[in-house]
Amino acid sequence: MIRVGIAGYGNLGRGAELALLQTPDMKLSAVFTRRAPGDVTLMTQGVPVLSLDKAKSMTGGIDVMILCGGSAKDLPEQGPELAALFNTVDSFDNHTDIPAYLEKMDKAAVQTTAVISSGWDPGLFSMMRLLSGAVLPNGNNYTFWGSGVSQGHSNALRGVKGVKDAVQYTIPKPDAVDAVRSGSNPVLTAVQKHLRDCYVVPDENADLTVIEREIKQIPYYFADYETKVTFITEEELRENHAGMPHGGRVFRTGATSEEHKQVMEFSLKLESNPEFTASVLVACARATVRLSGEGQFGAKTVFDIPLTYLSPADRMKLIKEML
Amino acid sequence: MIRVGIAGYGNLGRGAELALLQTPDMKLSAVFTRRAPGDVTLMTQGVPVLSLDKAKSMTGGIDVMILCGGSAKDLPEQGPELAALFNTVDSFDNHTDIPAYLEKMDKAAVQTTAVISSGWDPGLFSMMRLLSGAVLPNGNNYTFWGSGVSQGHSNALRGVKGVKDAVQYTIPKPDAVDAVRSGSNPVLTAVQKHLRDCYVVPDENADLTVIEREIKQIPYYFADYETKVTFITEEELRENHAGMPHGGRVFRTGATSEEHKQVMEFSLKLESNPEFTASVLVACARATVRLSGEGQFGAKTVFDIPLTYLSPADRMKLIKEML
Repeated sequence: MIRVGIAGYGNLGRGAELALLQTPDMKLSAVFTRRAPGDVTLMTQGVPVLSLDKAKSMTGGIDVMILCGGSAKDLPEQGPELAALFNTVDSFDNHTDIPAYLEKMDKAAVQTTAVISSGWDPGLFSMMRLLSGAVLPNGNNYTFWGSGVSQGHSNALRGVKGVKDAVQYTIPKPDAVDAVRSGSNPVLTAVQKHLRDCYVVPDENADLTVIEREIKQIPYYFADYETKVTFITEEELRENHAGMPHGGRVFRTGATSEEHKQVMEFSLKLESNPEFTASVLVACARATVRLSGEGQFGAKTVFDIPLTYLSPADRMKLIKEML
Repeated sequence: MIRVGIAGYGNLGRGAELALLQTPDMKLSAVFTRRAPGDVTLMTQGVPVLSLDKAKSMTGGIDVMILCGGSAKDLPEQGPELAALFNTVDSFDNHTDIPAYLEKMDKAAVQTTAVISSGWDPGLFSMMRLLSGAVLPNGNNYTFWGSGVSQGHSNALRGVKGVKDAVQYTIPKPDAVDAVRSGSNPVLTAVQKHLRDCYVVPDENADLTVIEREIKQIPYYFADYETKVTFITEEELRENHAGMPHGGRVFRTGATSEEHKQVMEFSLKLESNPEFTASVLVACARATVRLSGEGQFGAKTVFDIPLTYLSPADRMKLIKEML
């Protein structure tokens, strides 16, 4: 049994706990939190909740630590600290900062293995971009996100004066998806590929016209996009927009000769983004332990993992049943 | 430069030659054939065509051999013979016989590396089944084939009395695809998932009613399926049905909790099946050379290959640009 720790018990941490309940070869051994441990109640019975400060004393009891903190503030600090002590897996998702984070984690993980930036993007989508690009070198990649809730854009809405609460859905434009799927290799910007669909609860007596205008002027987030604003009540928000669905698709379209076009497409339709992301982390945690056992220390990514390492099944069983 | 040999110069071998023209790090060094070498004309200038018997004398000049023979008769014999001499990659696609073939290739590849059963199914589809099953252990896999030409079914049509020539398209049923995509986890047999669409050129004065009835009674191939038969002229067959399109999709639908379903889908839409299959073989040939260079000898599969090995790009470049 692989003994797993979870560091950080928000939506992602709870997702990891659920995912571990579905694995035959891994068990949750402890949850670490920055909150008062007594304030945290797990779904699993009999698993200790400990202060994150105590992690150091648990190195003998944890084979791999799943880091469930955020990429903005938590991981840049916690990542290297914990990777020096444990094998780790995380979902660091700030694409621009990945090389710097990789370097920091690589320095910290001297006698351990740290798989960084797993999840679905970065993660599964990255794997598809690499794989499809290797197969069709003469082609183009396209990534669409959604339909799904974007936390960053929802937060941007909540910062607008007169907005009490809000949720933003990123929605891929069907025409853009169809154009890519046809193999016509269109040139498309993020703006041309996505629609921004906003559900906004206004403060009492707020001027809706002003709110809508302000939203549509927010640079980077909304200004260039086709943006739709719908005002709803607090109750409607709670009832219809409390979930965290997400998804997206990665295409590679290319030509293998002058005559023949080829289209590869990978898509996800997720009812819970954090639960799915956590499921990827748990599969990668298994691989992390395998790599570490082979002495493959340092920072690794999903690009470095042979697929058999992700599965609890024996290699020959996988070859017989899945190849 | 990786020096590549192609063994067998049919549709797949020509596809491999085309794919090699798109790679910056590999070059075609020789083509081996069982035909009289003088009868074979390559697209690439200046590459020797040699008798397959001469392969043994070329071990110093070829880093990896792409085996482009068929799975029924060629590979079971040529595979082990060539794997004893060269690093090899092949598309052995008889699913049931894969474990036995793996064992034979593993015994032959003592100082070489033999990547077997790459292509798209087995191959890319197998990778998706493993990956998605590891991420969503509580779920179901679905594989749909088509729309595309099935050589086996086309041959079955050609065996019917009164049939001069024919092509059969395997077509996934849209209702079945939609049911799977909804996440409802339907139980579906191959018969329920696929339609068989036949284009038949009859002999002069043949009885079309009899032909159609006979086709629809062929066990295994057509008897249980929804089968559509359309009679066409030889000219129509040549003009509209000479291509080798194919494709398909692999789904994994699962639940990460009682509340949340998740759907993963990978699909291919291929204008040329042999050219695409060959492109996968060429990417795997690159990985074969990498594995061999590390001393990872014996029979391997796409499950054993870290994704970076498939790409000509440097690992850090891949991490920066694709993760």
